[in-house]
Amino acid sequence: MMRIAVDAMGSDSHPGPDVAGAVMAAREFGDKIYLVGDGASIEAELAKENTAGLSLEIVQAAEVVTMRDKPADVVKGKPGSSMHVGVGLVREGEADAFVTAGNTGAALGIAMLRGVGLGRIPGVKRPALGVVFPTKERPFLIDNGANTDCKAEYLRQFGVMGSLYVERVLGVERPRVALISTGEEEGKGNLLVKEAISLLANSDLNYIGNIEPKEFMQGAADVGVTDGFTGNVLMKTAEATAKYMSEAIRSEAKKSPFALLGGLLMRPAFKRIRRQLDPNEVGGALLLGVNGVVVIAHGRSNAYAIKQAIGQARSLAEKDVVGAIRGGISVIGER
Amino acid sequence: MMRIAVDAMGSDSHPGPDVAGAVMAAREFGDKIYLVGDGASIEAELAKENTAGLSLEIVQAAEVVTMRDKPADVVKGKPGSSMHVGVGLVREGEADAFVTAGNTGAALGIAMLRGVGLGRIPGVKRPALGVVFPTKERPFLIDNGANTDCKAEYLRQFGVMGSLYVERVLGVERPRVALISTGEEEGKGNLLVKEAISLLANSDLNYIGNIEPKEFMQGAADVGVTDGFTGNVLMKTAEATAKYMSEAIRSEAKKSPFALLGGLLMRPAFKRIRRQLDPNEVGGALLLGVNGVVVIAHGRSNAYAIKQAIGQARSLAEKDVVGAIRGGISVIGER
Repeated sequence: MMRIAVDAMGSDSHPGPDVAGAVMAAREFGDKIYLVGDGASIEAELAKENTAGLSLEIVQAAEVVTMRDKPADVVKGKPGSSMHVGVGLVREGEADAFVTAGNTGAALGIAMLRGVGLGRIPGVKRPALGVVFPTKERPFLIDNGANTDCKAEYLRQFGVMGSLYVERVLGVERPRVALISTGEEEGKGNLLVKEAISLLANSDLNYIGNIEPKEFMQGAADVGVTDGFTGNVLMKTAEATAKYMSEAIRSEAKKSPFALLGGLLMRPAFKRIRRQLDPNEVGGALLLGVNGVVVIAHGRSNAYAIKQAIGQARSLAEKDVVGAIRGGISVIGER
Repeated sequence: MMRIAVDAMGSDSHPGPDVAGAVMAAREFGDKIYLVGDGASIEAELAKENTAGLSLEIVQAAEVVTMRDKPADVVKGKPGSSMHVGVGLVREGEADAFVTAGNTGAALGIAMLRGVGLGRIPGVKRPALGVVFPTKERPFLIDNGANTDCKAEYLRQFGVMGSLYVERVLGVERPRVALISTGEEEGKGNLLVKEAISLLANSDLNYIGNIEPKEFMQGAADVGVTDGFTGNVLMKTAEATAKYMSEAIRSEAKKSPFALLGGLLMRPAFKRIRRQLDPNEVGGALLLGVNGVVVIAHGRSNAYAIKQAIGQARSLAEKDVVGAIRGGISVIGER
């Protein structure tokens, strides 16, 4: 039984989805869940649920981080926020992981700060956000936006952390690590990629070279390494294109009765595809490199997405990915 | 009547699509087309076509640039290539534009080199590749891969060149220019974006702020400015996602007879969507910032795509985008 702290005030429509997702997780995983936030609102949500036999505990937090808050202002300016309290439960060893669907920048800032949050694992230059990419092959992308400006050494460490996660949690032996680039040839890519190639090639990682977005999506590598700016643009472009195509299909289907009928007949197929590509399905972004497990779900998360993110958080904790990174970074990172 | 030089040895399956596309263009636009490459192969292709009344002329070039050639080797190492000869026709004023579906790096290198090719327009720091993004709104993306590492000043110039193209050729008044970033707030983005913001905000351009890939695709700006690495990743991710979804739909449709029937009924709708999103439909990438018109089509181009690229090249020439950039860069660039 794991103990997971969940930010009840995280999602765009908090605390509804956050609390409902936590209840789902408590039932499915049998875990103890701390619901962190405004006690009265949380209780009102819990009253709508059947919580018999579940291990749920409200932990009061007076302040709420909003999506409009500037991360830098929040970290020191709202010390009583549900994020501070939730991260604090992990820091004090009372929870094994923290899950929030709130402001990503604020969550990063609070989690990374020593003392207030969890601090970095010794040897880790920059914690990073990793995400499971929602194509069938489920490759892992790191960094998805924590570090917009990177040095080659950070990229190598992202490779180490991503590889350890994929190995421990997804059970892939010697995960194939690749750099995301504009071509497979060594000469392709920007200066950062070119510098990172030699670092990765000379590491203990199973580095297989550079890949383009297409090959990454098709699972040509288990771990796609990139800077947080590129990773974020890549992920957002994929999401936007999938959405654009769905809408184009819907609008084209309305143009003729045959197409409309066709669309109806294909509805279950579309539903399966949408579900497979749904970022909610794969859970949240994993903050790797800090002294504790933090998973940041999308602000638009529904209850199911929150439950999935909690599932990821418990796997990270259960497989001790933090311990693995602590060991791996000091060995692989210091060569 | 424009005079367009077409690289007959450019596409992956040259000279078939290249010659057939040129014939289509000669018929549709009534232009004079120079077919540059191996005379015998070109003649063999022309023999398959009805060329009565068309203005087509073969210009012999002994060497062929391959996709495996390293650009740096080709520029000086294959001076008799169809790219050299085609670009030379523009340099000497015998053609108004050059179109190739060959090796992008080689075409860039040859076109940019002074003496051998066209050289840069005075004041232009870095020529860039612009592409019309194939969503319904047809926004313009610049740079799509010519410059993997950029300074903020280059990005401002990309904005100027993109804006002039969109204004002149697409007829948009005061095109809205935006920086592609990971968020709309000024604080979002990497250092390059943050530096470019003030340059663009202080320019004469109609700079509207930063946009995410989704908003760009939906046409929230007429010109999306980014470095060539990010632009290339963005474009390739969009193409890969569209392809991934098409294949997912096809494979899901096979799983039930109802879905299969639905797929058949929706076929015309899918075809319209595929056609709309087809990069071939919008033509090639425009090399902006050199002293002449160069359009680089995809290596996988079919005859239709070559014809579309020729159509873009003739518009660029007709509207004198090179002249507009020559004037615009010196005014806007030197403030």
